[in-house]
Amino acid sequence: MSGSIFGNIFRITTWGESHGTAIGVVIDGCPAGLPLCESDIQQFLDRRRPGQSKFTTKRNETDQVEILSGIFEGKTTGTPISLLVRNQDQRSRDYGNIASLYRPGHADYTFTQKYGFRDYRGGGRTSGRETIGRVAAGAIASLILKELGIQVTAYTKAIGPFIIPEEDYHMEEIQENHLYMPNNALAANAAEYLTSIMSEKDSCGGIIECRAKGLPVGIGEPVFDKLDAELAKAIMSIGSVKAVEIGDGTKAAVSKGSTNNDSFIIRDGKVVKETNHAGGTLGGISDGSDLILRATVKPTSSIAREQRTVTKNNEEVELSIKGRHDPIIVPRAVVVVEAMTAVTLVDLIFRNMNSRLDFIKKFYMEDEDKDV
Amino acid sequence: MSGSIFGNIFRITTWGESHGTAIGVVIDGCPAGLPLCESDIQQFLDRRRPGQSKFTTKRNETDQVEILSGIFEGKTTGTPISLLVRNQDQRSRDYGNIASLYRPGHADYTFTQKYGFRDYRGGGRTSGRETIGRVAAGAIASLILKELGIQVTAYTKAIGPFIIPEEDYHMEEIQENHLYMPNNALAANAAEYLTSIMSEKDSCGGIIECRAKGLPVGIGEPVFDKLDAELAKAIMSIGSVKAVEIGDGTKAAVSKGSTNNDSFIIRDGKVVKETNHAGGTLGGISDGSDLILRATVKPTSSIAREQRTVTKNNEEVELSIKGRHDPIIVPRAVVVVEAMTAVTLVDLIFRNMNSRLDFIKKFYMEDEDKDV
Amino acid sequence: MSGSIFGNIFRITTWGESHGTAIGVVIDGCPAGLPLCESDIQQFLDRRRPGQSKFTTKRNETDQVEILSGIFEGKTTGTPISLLVRNQDQRSRDYGNIASLYRPGHADYTFTQKYGFRDYRGGGRTSGRETIGRVAAGAIASLILKELGIQVTAYTKAIGPFIIPEEDYHMEEIQENHLYMPNNALAANAAEYLTSIMSEKDSCGGIIECRAKGLPVGIGEPVFDKLDAELAKAIMSIGSVKAVEIGDGTKAAVSKGSTNNDSFIIRDGKVVKETNHAGGTLGGISDGSDLILRATVKPTSSIAREQRTVTKNNEEVELSIKGRHDPIIVPRAVVVVEAMTAVTLVDLIFRNMNSRLDFIKKFYMEDEDKDV
Amino acid sequence: MSGSIFGNIFRITTWGESHGTAIGVVIDGCPAGLPLCESDIQQFLDRRRPGQSKFTTKRNETDQVEILSGIFEGKTTGTPISLLVRNQDQRSRDYGNIASLYRPGHADYTFTQKYGFRDYRGGGRTSGRETIGRVAAGAIASLILKELGIQVTAYTKAIGPFIIPEEDYHMEEIQENHLYMPNNALAANAAEYLTSIMSEKDSCGGIIECRAKGLPVGIGEPVFDKLDAELAKAIMSIGSVKAVEIGDGTKAAVSKGSTNNDSFIIRDGKVVKETNHAGGTLGGISDGSDLILRATVKPTSSIAREQRTVTKNNEEVELSIKGRHDPIIVPRAVVVVEAMTAVTLVDLIFRNMNSRLDFIKKFYMEDEDKDV
Repeated sequence: MSGSIFGNIFRITTWGESHGTAIGVVIDGCPAGLPLCESDIQQFLDRRRPGQSKFTTKRNETDQVEILSGIFEGKTTGTPISLLVRNQDQRSRDYGNIASLYRPGHADYTFTQKYGFRDYRGGGRTSGRETIGRVAAGAIASLILKELGIQVTAYTKAIGPFIIPEEDYHMEEIQENHLYMPNNALAANAAEYLTSIMSEKDSCGGIIECRAKGLPVGIGEPVFDKLDAELAKAIMSIGSVKAVEIGDGTKAAVSKGSTNNDSFIIRDGKVVKETNHAGGTLGGISDGSDLILRATVKPTSSIAREQRTVTKNNEEVELSIKGRHDPIIVPRAVVVVEAMTAVTLVDLIFRNMNSRLDFIKKFYMEDEDKDV
Repeated sequence: MSGSIFGNIFRITTWGESHGTAIGVVIDGCPAGLPLCESDIQQFLDRRRPGQSKFTTKRNETDQVEILSGIFEGKTTGTPISLLVRNQDQRSRDYGNIASLYRPGHADYTFTQKYGFRDYRGGGRTSGRETIGRVAAGAIASLILKELGIQVTAYTKAIGPFIIPEEDYHMEEIQENHLYMPNNALAANAAEYLTSIMSEKDSCGGIIECRAKGLPVGIGEPVFDKLDAELAKAIMSIGSVKAVEIGDGTKAAVSKGSTNNDSFIIRDGKVVKETNHAGGTLGGISDGSDLILRATVKPTSSIAREQRTVTKNNEEVELSIKGRHDPIIVPRAVVVVEAMTAVTLVDLIFRNMNSRLDFIKKFYMEDEDKDV
Repeated sequence: MSGSIFGNIFRITTWGESHGTAIGVVIDGCPAGLPLCESDIQQFLDRRRPGQSKFTTKRNETDQVEILSGIFEGKTTGTPISLLVRNQDQRSRDYGNIASLYRPGHADYTFTQKYGFRDYRGGGRTSGRETIGRVAAGAIASLILKELGIQVTAYTKAIGPFIIPEEDYHMEEIQENHLYMPNNALAANAAEYLTSIMSEKDSCGGIIECRAKGLPVGIGEPVFDKLDAELAKAIMSIGSVKAVEIGDGTKAAVSKGSTNNDSFIIRDGKVVKETNHAGGTLGGISDGSDLILRATVKPTSSIAREQRTVTKNNEEVELSIKGRHDPIIVPRAVVVVEAMTAVTLVDLIFRNMNSRLDFIKKFYMEDEDKDV
Repeated sequence: MSGSIFGNIFRITTWGESHGTAIGVVIDGCPAGLPLCESDIQQFLDRRRPGQSKFTTKRNETDQVEILSGIFEGKTTGTPISLLVRNQDQRSRDYGNIASLYRPGHADYTFTQKYGFRDYRGGGRTSGRETIGRVAAGAIASLILKELGIQVTAYTKAIGPFIIPEEDYHMEEIQENHLYMPNNALAANAAEYLTSIMSEKDSCGGIIECRAKGLPVGIGEPVFDKLDAELAKAIMSIGSVKAVEIGDGTKAAVSKGSTNNDSFIIRDGKVVKETNHAGGTLGGISDGSDLILRATVKPTSSIAREQRTVTKNNEEVELSIKGRHDPIIVPRAVVVVEAMTAVTLVDLIFRNMNSRLDFIKKFYMEDEDKDV
């Protein structure tokens, strides 16, 4: 239980380091009968691949995924699906003083203290490449959700001070700019800002938002395993995320009950909420409105500027991190937030199937539907 | 796995409804040898008890805890500790139309959809009384932390627009005002504000902050079970919490790497961070600085004002919730945030003990230390 | 995770010591809508109660169960069900030298070594009374199974050398004799044998068998969580069980493939197995035949005869255990085996609901069936 | 949670089908600092490899293991260890009627019913090749145990009617015969018997025994997660195992308390048991004596003889399984039993570290020992 397994029924186990042989994930609990091929997964991986814009590292990786198990005649069999991505960029290199000091903002110090030493090559297990396994699993989760009529979409809401207000969202533009912002014009401004940040050898943070449409009412378990609680863990577990908000999020602190409460109304003969301050969850259970969550992502820790730090021999030194680094993590993390949301939803959707005795009886007692 | 069990090694199972016979918790995984009596737990429960100020419901409950198992000769035995609090206020009453309609902001609608019906008496399992089990378990977790030199403290950072800046904290004043704010003067202003909110038949939100001092470096598991990820789940699972932040939290979005990175320095011969924007965790592992987290709490959903809603027969109606309700959840939730933080830390502290082979060897191979 | 929680989706947490205040269990994951009252559970508890025959201790306990949560208007609500049985026989007594020495066959030595000390009153957590929580949970599991047309029945197959061959089973006689044997004549012989064992101040072992009829095909998860593997854990976790067999069990060692393989045939248009050497499971998944398992139970450890042992100060002594003790554990453990089987089956039945995408789609996409 | 993950703290996730691309395992929770290279694991895999004697299939597989992650500079890093074995024998072949009918004794029928279809190539996930992941993980677990002075040894106790009584064990002979029996003479007789079984186109069963020496007292968690309960699950989860016994096992049914109870005595100043009917566990906790367990393995299901079965179209047919099949599973399963025992022990040894507050305090409060 050292932290590389996520989920309860739909469970993913990720493994791999930045400069090891490969990175991968095993998905246990995927139902049988889902059509799945490598290109389904590759599409997701391509969204987090480096080298897509001038704001991402130029590491030369195609990140080709290989399915090693769990598929027969083009469909999932119900057994574990093992996915593998070989690391191509593992050539021996000079890691310089990285091995002997603790980079500010990174986990060098904490890993060394916890484990006694660390794999310092490219960050090892703490590298952003760790998210390859998450994204590959998220691709499969998204396919399951699609079969159930559920659509998860993440995008960049803010880059540094450039925040897109909800009324200016143009969802169709998300895939049209390298920053995955739902507003091309603001994306252009944000790109200029990033260029200036780069010239200052600095980095900046931002906000990723994620929405799920079509989620049935009733998803999420009361008390500890609430929909929002499980999502909070899933999203906060992504490296560099420092805050998770649901619906109005931090704004709820300065709101009033008369505003924050979403009235129930009847629309087209169905119960719906008139507004959605709650972000799609009441009492930790999906309420039929869009699920809305946001993740605040801190600035990239690796910056070219000189920084103060200490060595593992407790000497204070100045550090200047070489190489090209993304000035912002947000654009490449968008698909990671989407993936983790999808994985969490699938798990909770499966967990909900045992909530009512009458449904269970219907499931097992209607024999004619259970034929092969 | 329907959501009432929390933790991996130090595991708590809570149960009970607002107007059922009793509320309780079972703690499995508490080590043997901890001195424990009912008053240790009662102190924590008294902090969340109603009727302490004019801003809390006057429900007449003393919430006396009874230890049913797991203690022998004043010490924990290593077996499960079962704690029970009888509900005193369960008299049959007229729940009026509560049973037949969905209160805005509450889980009435989602519970009914998930389970087919619901225990509508006082909110049933979704009542704030559900947190009694959390707080009782948190009391035990806090005792364990104290034995390890770790101190967890939660307090009110903001009530509606009244936010205490960090430079104005007076920690010694937290227990001196009914709002548990580390600044008596601001607490007085906030109290006035709450009085006006009450006169408007409305409610408001706020922010709870929690700090842990003395946490060893190395706590938290990489990737999914990061210290901050587990805390995010723990805190977001508390009813009415809409955002969880670690360290600088949402401010990190508009920060830069050169500011946000905390430099490592040597102080008194030890590695420490010069600043603490990270909030005590790097790569999901405690870094030796204070752990800092914040929870945004939405305004109380039950307000006396008229609200629009629908009945379970899909009729639109006006609802006016009777009875006296807290205008704000924050003060009584402070101890709940502290409790959930403590429970999470104990679990992760226990999980960390297997991180290094040399420590495991030392633990098992030094026979003379293992004597009874 | 110190061992008092069982199951994955249908999860039970037991607690309590022999001479503590009470014994109990919390069931998390029971679906909503199951009619349940205290007498449903009491019936099961009465089957394990002491004082029913001359072969059981005369401890004066009525073991009345109280439901503390999870029921509303006579039905389960989907929230945790907390069950409590007060210990009546907790009067202060002289435990003599029990506290200071290690009884052979008991866990006195191992508990003391593991935890540093132990609750020696009546065996503490290792007492047979620990099974009250299991049986209470098993009562609820059995009700769920009954709703699904599944019947679990345990009975005594052997008392010492008195083994009932399968061809002599008279299932209707199980409840007609105090030993729960499906053959009254053999039960009478076994009773005589037990009387002689008692007169020798000795004890003896036996075998409990359990069958489940009506189990759907497909229950059990491949590889580690096989139907038989989960049952093996469940049954072996009952104190004093030393062997678990499925179907032909140990006889399979001396069988041949041509005999041991059960042929598939068509009967009434359905696939069935012609024989059932497998005991109802193939590849760890239920195959439609009766599930058959057996538990070997060791002789009662507490015997009146003198035995050699040592004190906690490492002195060798002679021990003579006072008081009246059951000469055999088997009859009272029959209902425990039945309960653990039922609990395990419910959990695996729930886990199976996510095995196929088409079933999940049917569950969620047929909206009209999901109405309240 | 569909069954391919085992363990709680030391957790293994296996994946892969007989004729898929590869077979593998991910080990999460291995402590940092264990020296590990591929040959350490290969030695274990070679013990289960086909083609070692005339009694095993001649499938041409070298089963070379590749370590993909979790190792740096020859030592484990504390992050997941991913192990991969490519399937070499995956050439397209004629599976004849295997795809369309249900082989007796195999999981063809149950898998098809559970999942709607199945990967019929060589048994898919139900193939004996599934155990490669178990054995690879067991190799690592065994290395950890060795560091703690614990030695696990499995061997063949019986082949059909050829049972070696304990007094005739010659442990040093285990590796000297292809049947892994601790008695070369009896192994020779058993080999003759197997030859005759093969000539009859039949198969036979047997018994594997496993012992662990050097286990500290105190391993195993009370109630559900007893040492013997976890082992029972681990061993019963191995395909073809039909019974699990601890210590005297099924013989305890016909024993008496005066015989079955193991007296405690003082030897060399230490508490030990004079006999070991219990098999090394009391109350589910290791007692310092050797841990002894036995697994009954059914005869190989694939036999050349004609058998009756049905097709997936519900037609009764005669089946004759072609190709060469092992006449007995036992010799190749010996290392699997050893591996699963080792994996289970490591997990419980890690879980035990939180049993006492004083040990936890010692672990965390002695700062000088925690340096890197």
